[in-house]
Amino acid sequence: MKSEKQKMLAGEMYDPADPILLKEREEARRKVRIYNQTLETEAEKRTQLLKELLGSTGENVYMEPNIRFDYGYNTHVGENFFANFDCTILDVCEVRFGDNCMLAPGVQIYTATHPLHPVERNTGKEYAKPIKFGNNVWIGGNAVINPGITVGDNVVIASGAVVTKDIPDNVVVGGNPAKIIKQIEL
Amino acid sequence: MKSEKQKMLAGEMYDPADPILLKEREEARRKVRIYNQTLETEAEKRTQLLKELLGSTGENVYMEPNIRFDYGYNTHVGENFFANFDCTILDVCEVRFGDNCMLAPGVQIYTATHPLHPVERNTGKEYAKPIKFGNNVWIGGNAVINPGITVGDNVVIASGAVVTKDIPDNVVVGGNPAKIIKQIEL
Amino acid sequence: MKSEKQKMLAGEMYDPADPILLKEREEARRKVRIYNQTLETEAEKRTQLLKELLGSTGENVYMEPNIRFDYGYNTHVGENFFANFDCTILDVCEVRFGDNCMLAPGVQIYTATHPLHPVERNTGKEYAKPIKFGNNVWIGGNAVINPGITVGDNVVIASGAVVTKDIPDNVVVGGNPAKIIKQIEL
Repeated sequence: MKSEKQKMLAGEMYDPADPILLKEREEARRKVRIYNQTLETEAEKRTQLLKELLGSTGENVYMEPNIRFDYGYNTHVGENFFANFDCTILDVCEVRFGDNCMLAPGVQIYTATHPLHPVERNTGKEYAKPIKFGNNVWIGGNAVINPGITVGDNVVIASGAVVTKDIPDNVVVGGNPAKIIKQIEL
Repeated sequence: MKSEKQKMLAGEMYDPADPILLKEREEARRKVRIYNQTLETEAEKRTQLLKELLGSTGENVYMEPNIRFDYGYNTHVGENFFANFDCTILDVCEVRFGDNCMLAPGVQIYTATHPLHPVERNTGKEYAKPIKFGNNVWIGGNAVINPGITVGDNVVIASGAVVTKDIPDNVVVGGNPAKIIKQIEL
Repeated sequence: MKSEKQKMLAGEMYDPADPILLKEREEARRKVRIYNQTLETEAEKRTQLLKELLGSTGENVYMEPNIRFDYGYNTHVGENFFANFDCTILDVCEVRFGDNCMLAPGVQIYTATHPLHPVERNTGKEYAKPIKFGNNVWIGGNAVINPGITVGDNVVIASGAVVTKDIPDNVVVGGNPAKIIKQIEL
């Protein structure tokens, strides 16, 4: 029989009040709080703390406080990852970034979701869908990435975009819902 | 003659620099600051502080820091209220939630507004309109709810939605401005 | 030969890893952190700290924490400037406000931008474009102002708007991308 954590990671309905998951989220919040209390002079410590918090990283990883994560260990970032102020990643399922990805301030990445039917939703059970970014992705400020989205290589997501569908390689998207507004010629 | 607070609560033009209102906002900011400084291990204390800050709550109420309120006492939440990280509620007039409402990260709920005419606006006087949510409402991340909005039961507001009109029961809305994108069959 | 700072201020491609610019951003983050740690009872101290952080201000200037700036000294605000909770101003180039401007919570103002081409972007070089607001501008909550935008006098930017084009005098704009939705009769 699957544990609640196994169900969660498999994208199935699971119970977030499971004691193991509660403990893991509390531990992530503790690490996140310590991160958000570091000083602007402690760049190396921040990189070290991110390497301990996240599932995997390249050498060069940096995020401006305040950061928010659900678990941390479900987020994997490639080489040269940079996030500006106040980004939130609800990594209930895996969030995976290629190399050279950068996030502007206030970017919101949500794997977590809930049933649309109120009776189902009120059981407290929920589920999540993984999110994947290719290489060389730049996400503009205040953009929202919805559960289950796959983003290609060399993509620019405009500020304020709400991404509800997969994005192919080499495009700029923008709007709510986000649509392709430009091809990028390589 | 009405006090500035009575005018404020009645949705009339009022002076936010009124000494009583200044004191009440300062007190709310003090409570909010203390809340935002609690630790991830202090779930019960957080629930207790919310019961002291808000106008009324059910037994089961929780918000992930950082929270933001103007007065706190103008916000009433039903049973099983949950808000994820960094939600802001400008409760200059009443904000009322039914039971089983949940807010994703970064939700913005604004009763506060200002005159459109610059000369009027520059007097510093302002006004607000109450906001009401039914039961079983789920508000997606970074969504904005404008002054005066009434939201029905069993509603899902998509992430990034900007709600500028009332929402009937049993629908999903999304976009900017938010429109009905799906009926929910019960 | 131009320094990196001179290139930055001129809107040309520059290297943000330049030691002088790194030091200046660290100093701004230090001032911003001290500001964000002030208490709700310290309104005068907040005004004083803003006068030290920003390039120029009127007498009457106030921002609710948390504030975010890149340099601070590139932001110039007129008389009677007010910003509500959690506004972010990436002032890599100049951001200039006229008199009587007010920002609702979560407003995002970005002069900073990057090349669309991934190879160029991955060099780490970037650039910025100045942003200018007239007098009597009210920016609604969670709105985003993109690099290079000029906003006229007596403008209201609706909550959640994403401003991608210049805005003339005496209008209300809203949506993503923001469009004129109303003329304001003076």
